[in-house]
Amino acid sequence: MSTDTGQQNLFKTAEPKMVDAKEPKAVKEKPDRGGETAESMAKRQREISVSEFFTKNRHLLGFDSPRKALLTAVKEAVDNSLDACEEARILPDIVVTITRIGTSEKQFTMTVEDNGPGIVKAQVPNVFGRLLYGSKFHRLRQSRGQQGIGISAAGMYGQLTTGAPVRVRSKPGKKSVPLAFEIRIDTARNRPESTDKVIEWEKDHGTEVSIDMEGEYRRGQKSIEEFLKLMAVANPHVHLTFKDPDGNISEYHRATNELPKEVEEIKPHPHGVELGILLKMIQDSEHRTVSAFLQQDFSRVGPTVAKEICEKADVKPDSNPRRLETPAVQRLKTAIDATKIMAPPLSCIAPIGEDLIIAGLKKEVEADFYVATSRKPVVYRGHPFAIEVGIAYGKPGDTLVMTEAGKIVEVAAKKNENAEALMGAADEPVRLIRFANRVPLVFQQSACAITKAVIGTNWKNYGLQQPRGALPIGPMVVFVHIASVWVPFTSESKEAIASYDEILEELRLALMDCGRKLGSHVRKGKKLAGEFKKRNYIEIYIPHLIVALKDILKLDDKEAGKARDNLTIVLEKSRKL
Amino acid sequence: MSTDTGQQNLFKTAEPKMVDAKEPKAVKEKPDRGGETAESMAKRQREISVSEFFTKNRHLLGFDSPRKALLTAVKEAVDNSLDACEEARILPDIVVTITRIGTSEKQFTMTVEDNGPGIVKAQVPNVFGRLLYGSKFHRLRQSRGQQGIGISAAGMYGQLTTGAPVRVRSKPGKKSVPLAFEIRIDTARNRPESTDKVIEWEKDHGTEVSIDMEGEYRRGQKSIEEFLKLMAVANPHVHLTFKDPDGNISEYHRATNELPKEVEEIKPHPHGVELGILLKMIQDSEHRTVSAFLQQDFSRVGPTVAKEICEKADVKPDSNPRRLETPAVQRLKTAIDATKIMAPPLSCIAPIGEDLIIAGLKKEVEADFYVATSRKPVVYRGHPFAIEVGIAYGKPGDTLVMTEAGKIVEVAAKKNENAEALMGAADEPVRLIRFANRVPLVFQQSACAITKAVIGTNWKNYGLQQPRGALPIGPMVVFVHIASVWVPFTSESKEAIASYDEILEELRLALMDCGRKLGSHVRKGKKLAGEFKKRNYIEIYIPHLIVALKDILKLDDKEAGKARDNLTIVLEKSRKL
Repeated sequence: MSTDTGQQNLFKTAEPKMVDAKEPKAVKEKPDRGGETAESMAKRQREISVSEFFTKNRHLLGFDSPRKALLTAVKEAVDNSLDACEEARILPDIVVTITRIGTSEKQFTMTVEDNGPGIVKAQVPNVFGRLLYGSKFHRLRQSRGQQGIGISAAGMYGQLTTGAPVRVRSKPGKKSVPLAFEIRIDTARNRPESTDKVIEWEKDHGTEVSIDMEGEYRRGQKSIEEFLKLMAVANPHVHLTFKDPDGNISEYHRATNELPKEVEEIKPHPHGVELGILLKMIQDSEHRTVSAFLQQDFSRVGPTVAKEICEKADVKPDSNPRRLETPAVQRLKTAIDATKIMAPPLSCIAPIGEDLIIAGLKKEVEADFYVATSRKPVVYRGHPFAIEVGIAYGKPGDTLVMTEAGKIVEVAAKKNENAEALMGAADEPVRLIRFANRVPLVFQQSACAITKAVIGTNWKNYGLQQPRGALPIGPMVVFVHIASVWVPFTSESKEAIASYDEILEELRLALMDCGRKLGSHVRKGKKLAGEFKKRNYIEIYIPHLIVALKDILKLDDKEAGKARDNLTIVLEKSRKL
Repeated sequence: MSTDTGQQNLFKTAEPKMVDAKEPKAVKEKPDRGGETAESMAKRQREISVSEFFTKNRHLLGFDSPRKALLTAVKEAVDNSLDACEEARILPDIVVTITRIGTSEKQFTMTVEDNGPGIVKAQVPNVFGRLLYGSKFHRLRQSRGQQGIGISAAGMYGQLTTGAPVRVRSKPGKKSVPLAFEIRIDTARNRPESTDKVIEWEKDHGTEVSIDMEGEYRRGQKSIEEFLKLMAVANPHVHLTFKDPDGNISEYHRATNELPKEVEEIKPHPHGVELGILLKMIQDSEHRTVSAFLQQDFSRVGPTVAKEICEKADVKPDSNPRRLETPAVQRLKTAIDATKIMAPPLSCIAPIGEDLIIAGLKKEVEADFYVATSRKPVVYRGHPFAIEVGIAYGKPGDTLVMTEAGKIVEVAAKKNENAEALMGAADEPVRLIRFANRVPLVFQQSACAITKAVIGTNWKNYGLQQPRGALPIGPMVVFVHIASVWVPFTSESKEAIASYDEILEELRLALMDCGRKLGSHVRKGKKLAGEFKKRNYIEIYIPHLIVALKDILKLDDKEAGKARDNLTIVLEKSRKL
């Protein structure tokens, strides 16, 4: 192996030129085998724009079927609206509208309007007309978007299938002039082509995006409706209105008027940084000493820790970081890994919290038992993350409760359409609802680390049936949320979470914690049901017993009545509840 | 909906500027809510380089674990070598070497050397040090690589985990000067930084790439060894040598000296082109009339078809394509879809063929029955593809055959390690081996359209057991290959095939065809086994029968012997095999 110490600068040569006709060719051999030569092949080598790549591979972005395309577009637009509102500390008010284009059942316009901070004129074309462009990728803080792909990809799909541009309205503030944009994507260059004009817009501030696209509108499972319902569960501070193509309007009201905690951007944590990243950070650093570099470019490194790392690495703390050779950087990396450093600050993520998880579940799922666990944030590969689990168990219709007088009664089922939609039947697998940074994950359930963790939990311990290698059975909704500065998704369409060991372990612990609480409820329910059954028997047999007693002891009606009351009291007392 | 007819040029405005301090700001409102404003948010918007994106999301490229990383890197390098050799019509001779770096069990150097056409000096840095760069993305012809990501991603992963550059040696021809390169990737710009020098290299032509990387070397399932073995099955024209870190050398010899058929580049087929693509093709066309555009920029459009399309679309054949308004292009698209057009030329793909599939299987899997089906190519979304299926059934050790004399005998098991590795046990699920453009697909089996099709086939019809929703059970290897100008993978790591309906249907038909042939073999085998059992009974009982006959009819030993022979002959004759 050669690490070519001290020759870093050698690699800083100019960018290689493209082959062109004038380049002197050392070889002009025409091989007799007839095929291509290195030269003929070189002429076809060229750059592939990221838009071209994703146009051809649009299933990677969630645009593989007309039905999924419509939902994916709504999701990307709503994600952006919520991120912007929260960043600007505005309680979000979002309107999602799907309309048919003409009488078509195949073409739709999807529009998402928000009351967010708007977008400045110069940025609108880039945000909506350029892939891999945005503010969230390079920042270590929790947000729904993270790639700078989503909404531009939706626009690209619309343009591909209908030829129409993305239409945007934006007003950044009360005194700003509202503008309307039409944006096309030049896929060969991955750049927007945009026009704009001043409009009237009765709104203090906000953004609206409209995309015409091929699509398919359906209700039920994996529908836009369901997605928005789940969005409301995990975002109880959001007011959402949904207008479907048939003119039906659904509204999701706020369960709280408090915005999620404001998240702060953090610097990378030294643990989890890889050698290649460290080499790059050192080259890019503005600091003049290794000690300053360690303290300023990382989180949780103070003078003492910096000194300790430098000592272990045998690197002088006041040496110039950019002059370090690769072996010295390797020693630094080894020293960092061997040094105890405080966990990263957790202000960069905003979990939902146990109370709001339960409030969100209660709003959309009717059950007779709710429990939630919000785990303390931990770290994978230097990225803080937190796992939260909520459980809603039991249909109210199936429920026995003990009244204040100690009586066990059946509670009548309340009619609630939401509850029916989210809660499965008693003999079916539980309903698993997955969230990442407060966004519902609708597709690819079986490929997701969350599903693996739920299946891997032994639910028999908590009184539920569970077939081998499958979700447990029962009238139950399991809510699982991962909040992180960087969620590792299994594809660009952000539908499932990659199975990192640290994430699986936290999922396991959170599920077990909720499971234990559920277990004691389920056991209590079973005991109540048993008692209820027993009492029913007693209540059936007491009258017969009294008839017999009356006959044997020659009791009159009054005495018989007294005996019945006494027997009932004795039986009630003898039971322990 | 607004399609803004005739205003195409409006969108050709200059690229939007980045926000900078000098831009006059219409709004200077500081909202009292305290959060971010559109302006403060705009300052953080910026481009994300594709290298940065994939560094953070490297699991998308198959570099999510050290073990998988090493295999993925080998795969990408071997794919490139084979593509280059075949394009240059050279019988490939490839050497794969994995060595430990020092005594490390965590760091390895992987080297792949070929006898291909080499790469010209100016292209080497781009090919190995730049993501989304290559010659295969824009061409409609079958090749292993298609994205221009793979080998640069392997280099990026190596750089990230060891800090070392990619090392390349290249010699484009006998008279060329061999060069050695060291290449780093500037991830922030997605551009290579490269140095090179003249070297000695005893070779007529070829390329060698070496990457130092974090990895884990193991044998067995999903190992480099297994991958190369499968590669040899689907590429019987390749000579492969593998040197493992312990110094063991495996060799895979050619089963044929013929290269696969040379594939030709084709133009897009009109069916399958989407409106957005058609709009772009029309704008980019060099042709002056719509008729010429249709005939020259598409395959299978002659003067008659072009005329028919124009008539249906109510577009004049000699009008200037670049002056067409969007509604006219929409009419063209509708007319194209309504016109019968010959299927695309199939010279762009090179299936393996039934004989070579069986030869490849025989080379690496020992079985007693082989069958293969190579379906005629068809088209999905304008892309030609062909499905091929091969089956190897039955362990020789378990096998009954009828000898020439009509005797059924058990064939002794031959010892063959390869056979053991690929063939499963009789009571286990069949072994499914998947290939796309002759490359083995090792990971994500359950997410793959091929797996879905095999599970969806009713193997009970062909005499095999099959649990519900699972692979059939039996001593069998199922080989499935898709050859296409564009294989739709479910992720950039190219591990599984997306479930397009057209592909699933062709898979189904090919599997059924092989299944039927297998079925008659399995039934024949079962019949033979039944006969064998019967005959065993007969052979057991004949001596007893003879003893009884001898006793009853008072036969002497000679007569008894004759009776036994006659009985045996009668029994043999009475059986129909």
